[in-house]
This record gives sequence, C-alpha cells and structure tokens, in this order.
Amino acid sequence: MANILMFGTGSIGAVYTCILDKGGANVTCVCRSNYQEINENGIEVTSTVLGKLCSRPKVVQSVQEAVTLPEQPYDYVFVCTKVIPKTMKQTLEALHAVLKSGATTIVLIQNGLGIEKPYADAYPSATIISGVVYLPTTEIAPGVFLHEEVERLHLGLYGSSTSTSSHSRLESLATIIRNGGGTAVVEEDIQRQRWQKIIANGAVNTICALSKCRDRQLMDLSPLGTPLIKNVMLEIAAVAEVAGYADVAGAEAVENQLQRSLSRPYPGVQPSMLADVFNGKPLEVEAILGEIVRVGLSKQVSIPRLETLLVLLQGLDAYLYNQRADDAR
Amino acid sequence: MANILMFGTGSIGAVYTCILDKGGANVTCVCRSNYQEINENGIEVTSTVLGKLCSRPKVVQSVQEAVTLPEQPYDYVFVCTKVIPKTMKQTLEALHAVLKSGATTIVLIQNGLGIEKPYADAYPSATIISGVVYLPTTEIAPGVFLHEEVERLHLGLYGSSTSTSSHSRLESLATIIRNGGGTAVVEEDIQRQRWQKIIANGAVNTICALSKCRDRQLMDLSPLGTPLIKNVMLEIAAVAEVAGYADVAGAEAVENQLQRSLSRPYPGVQPSMLADVFNGKPLEVEAILGEIVRVGLSKQVSIPRLETLLVLLQGLDAYLYNQRADDAR
Repeated sequence: MANILMFGTGSIGAVYTCILDKGGANVTCVCRSNYQEINENGIEVTSTVLGKLCSRPKVVQSVQEAVTLPEQPYDYVFVCTKVIPKTMKQTLEALHAVLKSGATTIVLIQNGLGIEKPYADAYPSATIISGVVYLPTTEIAPGVFLHEEVERLHLGLYGSSTSTSSHSRLESLATIIRNGGGTAVVEEDIQRQRWQKIIANGAVNTICALSKCRDRQLMDLSPLGTPLIKNVMLEIAAVAEVAGYADVAGAEAVENQLQRSLSRPYPGVQPSMLADVFNGKPLEVEAILGEIVRVGLSKQVSIPRLETLLVLLQGLDAYLYNQRADDAR
Repeated sequence: MANILMFGTGSIGAVYTCILDKGGANVTCVCRSNYQEINENGIEVTSTVLGKLCSRPKVVQSVQEAVTLPEQPYDYVFVCTKVIPKTMKQTLEALHAVLKSGATTIVLIQNGLGIEKPYADAYPSATIISGVVYLPTTEIAPGVFLHEEVERLHLGLYGSSTSTSSHSRLESLATIIRNGGGTAVVEEDIQRQRWQKIIANGAVNTICALSKCRDRQLMDLSPLGTPLIKNVMLEIAAVAEVAGYADVAGAEAVENQLQRSLSRPYPGVQPSMLADVFNGKPLEVEAILGEIVRVGLSKQVSIPRLETLLVLLQGLDAYLYNQRADDAR
C-alpha cells in the first residue's frame, strides 16, 4: 500500500485525496485553514463527473508532524499548493524532512510553466512527476467541495529523472489514480500539456483578474474584448513556437480556446486569478505569465500585450500583499 | 461684470471660482455633495503656489435653479466635471436651460481628447473654449481644498467658433483669470496642449489605475515597469504623430515625462484615475484612452499596449459601475 503525503489540501488536493484513497493508497493530509473540519469530518466531494466522493485521511498540521507518523518514508508527496514565489522557500524547507531520505517521489499538481525547477534545484536526485490537471473545483465550506465539468490529470517525468525506477513510480501512481476512478494520462513530454493549458490560462485568467470581469462579460462589453483575448493567446502561441510547442499551442489551439470562451453562457466563468483578486489572495503571476515573458524576451519574440499584463499583475499582486500585511497588523 | 456659472464644483471648479471671483467676475456654483458646506462657509483653498484663496459664491443645487437667478444669461458656463460618457447626456440636457439663449460661452476645463465634440454637436452655434489645466488639487474636506506644485490654464477656441466675437470672449476670460492671479495662456491650437498632456496622463494614469500602484512604486517593483510606461507613452506619441502633433507629443516629450516620473520621491504620485478606483468612482476611460485608440486604429498605428489598457479599464469601469449599483440597492 503506497503511503502518500498531500501537501496543500485545497480543492485539487482534496479531490485527489479521495481518488487516491479509493485507489488503495494510504493518504496523510497537511491541512491549515480547514484542519479542524477535515480532522473531524473528513473530506466530502460532490462531483458532477465522479459522483459523491468521501475520504477520512490522516490529518496533520505540518510536514514536521507528518514525519513522526509510522507511514514514513512516504512513497509520494503531492504538492497541490498555489505557486507563489514568496512562499516557495518555505515550502521547499518544509518538505526537506520528507524528501531527505530520497525514497519519496515529488508530484507537482500545479499551474503554470517552469514550476518544477525550484524542486529540481533543491533536490537534484529526487524523482519529480509533473502534473497538469483539469478539475474545476470549489471549496464551498471547509472540507466540503464541489467539482464540475471535467476531470483529467496528465502526468509525466520532469527533466533528467527518467530512470527505470522513476518510470515505474510514475506508472504505479497512474494505476492508483485509475483504480480510484480518476483519469491519469501518462505523457512522454508533460511540458506539451503545460503549454497547451497556458494558452487559455495565460490570457483569460490574467485579463479577467485585471478587468475584474468574467470572460464573456468582457467580450460583450467592449468590441475590443474578444480581439484582445485572441491577440494575447496568439502572443503566447508565438512564445510556445520558439519553445518548440507550436503543434499543441499554435493557431488551432488559440481558435479552440477562444471558441470555448465565446460559447460559454453569459457572464462566463470566474477564473481562479479573478477569485484570488476578490479574496485578496496571492496571484500566481510568475508561474502563469512570468516564465512565458522570460522565454519570449530571451528569444526576441514580440509580446507587448504579455509584458503589459505581467507588469500590471506584478503591481496588483504587490498591492494585495501590502493590503494583507496591513490587515494583519 | 461677467456672470459665470460653474458646473461641477470639485477641486478644479473650486479653485477657478476663487480666481474668477478675485478677477472681478460674479460666480454662481452648481454644487452637489459639498452644497451645504459651500453654501454656509464658502470655498477655502490653501495653495502653495497662490497662497490662501477664499470665495463666497452664490450656490445652487441645479442648473434649473441657476437660471432663475437675476444673473442670467450667463456670459460663461464652466464645465469642470469628469468626462463620463454615461452622464454626458444628462450634462448636455442640464445645460440646455443656460445655453439656449446663445449668449453663453461654454468653457470646458476637462481632461482627455475629443471631449468638445458632444458639446459642439449639441450646440453648433455656441462658442466653445477648450481648457487644459495643470492644477494638482485635492478636496480635503467639503469646500476645503489643497493645491500644490503648479497652476497653469491653457485656453483656446474649439473648432469653427473662431469669429471675432469668439476671440474677444476668449481674451476677456483670460484677462479675468489673470486679474485673479491665475495663469491663462491663450493658444492658437489648444489641441496641441491636449496631446502634450495626454502623453503622461494616458500612460501613468491608466497603468497606475490597473496595477493599483503609484508610478515610482511600480518602476521600483518590476524591471519591466519603466519600459512599460515608456512604451505606452511612445504608442501615444505614434498616434499624436498621425494626428499632426509630433512636435509637442513626440520622443522628446516622452523622455521628459518619463524623467518626471522617475525623479519623483518614492512612492510617487497617486494619479486621479487610481484615486477614482480606490473610491469606486467612474473612470475617465474614453476621454483619456478611448479617443487615442480610435484615432490610432483608424490610421493603422500599432498600439497593442494602448488597446490592452483600454479593454482592461473598460472592464474595470463596468465592474465599479455595477458595484455602485449594488451599493445603492
């Protein structure tokens, strides 16, 4: 029975706790804001795709506490937190107690590009599984989640961790997820999936966060709304091309993603970054836009709109950070 | 003695009420939020440039009330309100009672480009004086104002209203302002001043409003901050060039304005549009950016950053509008 540590038991972490549990793994969750509720009542997911899911995992408040349990060493540690540079150092340090043995595989189920590098730099000999997930989920009460529309997890090995042992860890994990009713797609090159997802995510998420409008709302509001979303997607596609991903993140992907936004019923979706703005939470600016802009600029790709969005979001994120600091006083 | 109606007695309207009063005019102010205080105590301006200014103008709550006073017909009606398309129709209708006689000259002391056209369309035979003002002023309490740094008003005739009579109305007004201690510069082509001012205003004001950072703050925060502000200014300059204003709004003006922002002490100024965002007030999006983008697109100028800022601000303004509507419920 695989021992799994779940670091970050928000929406994504909670749904995968249920799936992994059902698939036969022994899951321990690190919880913060919802610790008490999950400790008392477990996790409850109502899913329009997977039906009702429940789990009563072991619950701890810190990684330090998790490594005192008899489960260790953990076979896998899932990192399902948001990608925030300011807290990355803390996360890497917190995970040290789990990862020092070398027996534990890191599984990153996170948004954006370039997110694996800090882990690879800090733990060069660890196996890193990178995951791209489609799983629209909301925590409607502490420990209670609503999941809709789509469920799919793409998994692949990161960088040089491509030994036979790494491959077999990847395959074993995919099997547990499938046994738990989830869709695990093993990828030869997981970065293809990252680029494919960022086409829509890098455009709609960021534009909505700054305008405080949902996608369809903005498209209806201004005759320049739809062209802007399309042009931002095309700039991302131009960067994807120099990165070698034109086949999955090219003009066709742009057209598909644009039609998805256009065909949504009014007012459209509230992307995660817009929700974060409304909640005054940190924005995943660097993971979602920073890396694209860095790649684009280093290869002299013309990305005026992406640069504009990046600076505006860096400013907005700093403003929200200062607001939180004020509120904490 | 010239009779002047002041429509919009915010910061700009209040300071000019004092100056016009001191210059020998008979000023009637239309006040809304600060009606009671100005009616009881008059206007008080503390200015680091002009010293202490006071005025006890006649105060009314509406244009309708103003036209029942013995002062009418007014020689000039100053419009010192923000330029908000949603309220433009109301303003034009409200002013009808003053303007129907044809004896009254319209004086627009407002931000942006293309702001005169709705007045010229509605009152084709009226003399329109267009004013570009540099007057950083804040209302620190109802009827009490703080003015700093610079005081300068550029005045010129708009469009076809260039008869001898129009010229003499313009010169008379400039004389009153000068007599009142103000700086009135009569311009052959006032649009030059509008383009010159919009270089900084169109860039810094809009970028700050979206990022919620002051100018120096954003420049320090992101290595891409200063290049963004500069590139947005250069896009405005490119539009100014096709509009025939390269001499006042070209590369040299961009460099000057950028150095002004860079040389400000940290964290820099809070531009009016950022203040409006914080206060949930309507944004002057169309006057400040809409017209530049319309001119630019009609002449095939490449303005990707301006288009991006415009759509984001249109969205943000709609969001703020809906918030106000919710609050009013």
